[in-house]
Amino acid sequence: MEGRDVKLKSIITISRQFGSGGREIGEKLAKKLDIPFYDRELITRAAKESGFSEAAFENVEKKATNSLLYSIAMGMNAYGSHDIGFTHLSLDDQIFLAQSNVIRKLALEGPSVIVGRCADYILRDYKDVIHVFIWADLKFRKERAIKLYNYSEENAEESILKLDKHRANYYNYHSNEKWGRVENYHLSIRSDHVGIDNAVELIADYIKLSERG
Amino acid sequence: MEGRDVKLKSIITISRQFGSGGREIGEKLAKKLDIPFYDRELITRAAKESGFSEAAFENVEKKATNSLLYSIAMGMNAYGSHDIGFTHLSLDDQIFLAQSNVIRKLALEGPSVIVGRCADYILRDYKDVIHVFIWADLKFRKERAIKLYNYSEENAEESILKLDKHRANYYNYHSNEKWGRVENYHLSIRSDHVGIDNAVELIADYIKLSERG
Repeated sequence: MEGRDVKLKSIITISRQFGSGGREIGEKLAKKLDIPFYDRELITRAAKESGFSEAAFENVEKKATNSLLYSIAMGMNAYGSHDIGFTHLSLDDQIFLAQSNVIRKLALEGPSVIVGRCADYILRDYKDVIHVFIWADLKFRKERAIKLYNYSEENAEESILKLDKHRANYYNYHSNEKWGRVENYHLSIRSDHVGIDNAVELIADYIKLSERG
Repeated sequence: MEGRDVKLKSIITISRQFGSGGREIGEKLAKKLDIPFYDRELITRAAKESGFSEAAFENVEKKATNSLLYSIAMGMNAYGSHDIGFTHLSLDDQIFLAQSNVIRKLALEGPSVIVGRCADYILRDYKDVIHVFIWADLKFRKERAIKLYNYSEENAEESILKLDKHRANYYNYHSNEKWGRVENYHLSIRSDHVGIDNAVELIADYIKLSERG
């Protein structure tokens, strides 16, 4: 199946464990389907539009270390925080809202691939959005972390698990959902088993199959 | 992709939420790939080989209502129960062991599709086994339960959730793993979104892609 055969109408969100190749899969998928790819670009765009500095955005994920502790520290209720006025929100929540607005705007612009940033949660009520989760064996992720991100053999594993935890905490805090819960995704794939390029092909197959009904 | 094109070496296990069409998907996949399909047949075979009555097997899942309560009631430790001698096990555990032995024997016979019975856990260390999880929206499952299994409109939802709980408890008790956890499956698919027949095709695609490496 080639990109040109696909009468694409879907937006694809990709959530992924650190080192699973989810970002690479998203990038290759977008290229294959000839649609835009958003990851950090999204943050940059959000930062520019909302006037927040890019550095502030980069720290958001790390700060959301625990939804309960975090909300206590922020002096608010984790469950009602998105319903109160923008100006009463913490800086981190304001950034999350700005990102959410960007993601919603992108969704109106047509098909794209969006990696991370709770995009699956933000677009949960949108039609024609396909949510994908990519995970992989820890050994595979460790090898990728060392090879691609220059982690040392000694602390690669610890770093991976910590980064996963950051992602989970960030997601769980902002969504009140559980990161990596199978029911949040139309399709979940183990990338080290089927392979990065095959995972791209499989997602493209899923889109083709689901769109033909 | 037709069955004849597939140089199949894999066994496919399918775990599924009640009413998601997982059994139907398994049956159609086996037909497409021209390999055996095992579900209740497996129980019959296990029952015959081990001498237990089929009725005793049918009740196993319902009895495993809660791994902790269950193990207390059985007067044993849920964690060590598989390591003690066969004759010291409860009847239910003996049946589970007999089923496990049958599944392991089937795995030696070549490619097949095995639905349920903790087959993914039992074959977790086997090579060339692909574990699939099928889930679906509750509305879809309710409609199937009413249409295919004659559940009443009034209690279909309650029954579905109860049956899911039975499956989860049965799985969690015997595996000390968590049923429906994304990391236990190579591939997880939302059947009501992509459709039953498309899910079959997608699994066949996954097998083809993973076997070509």
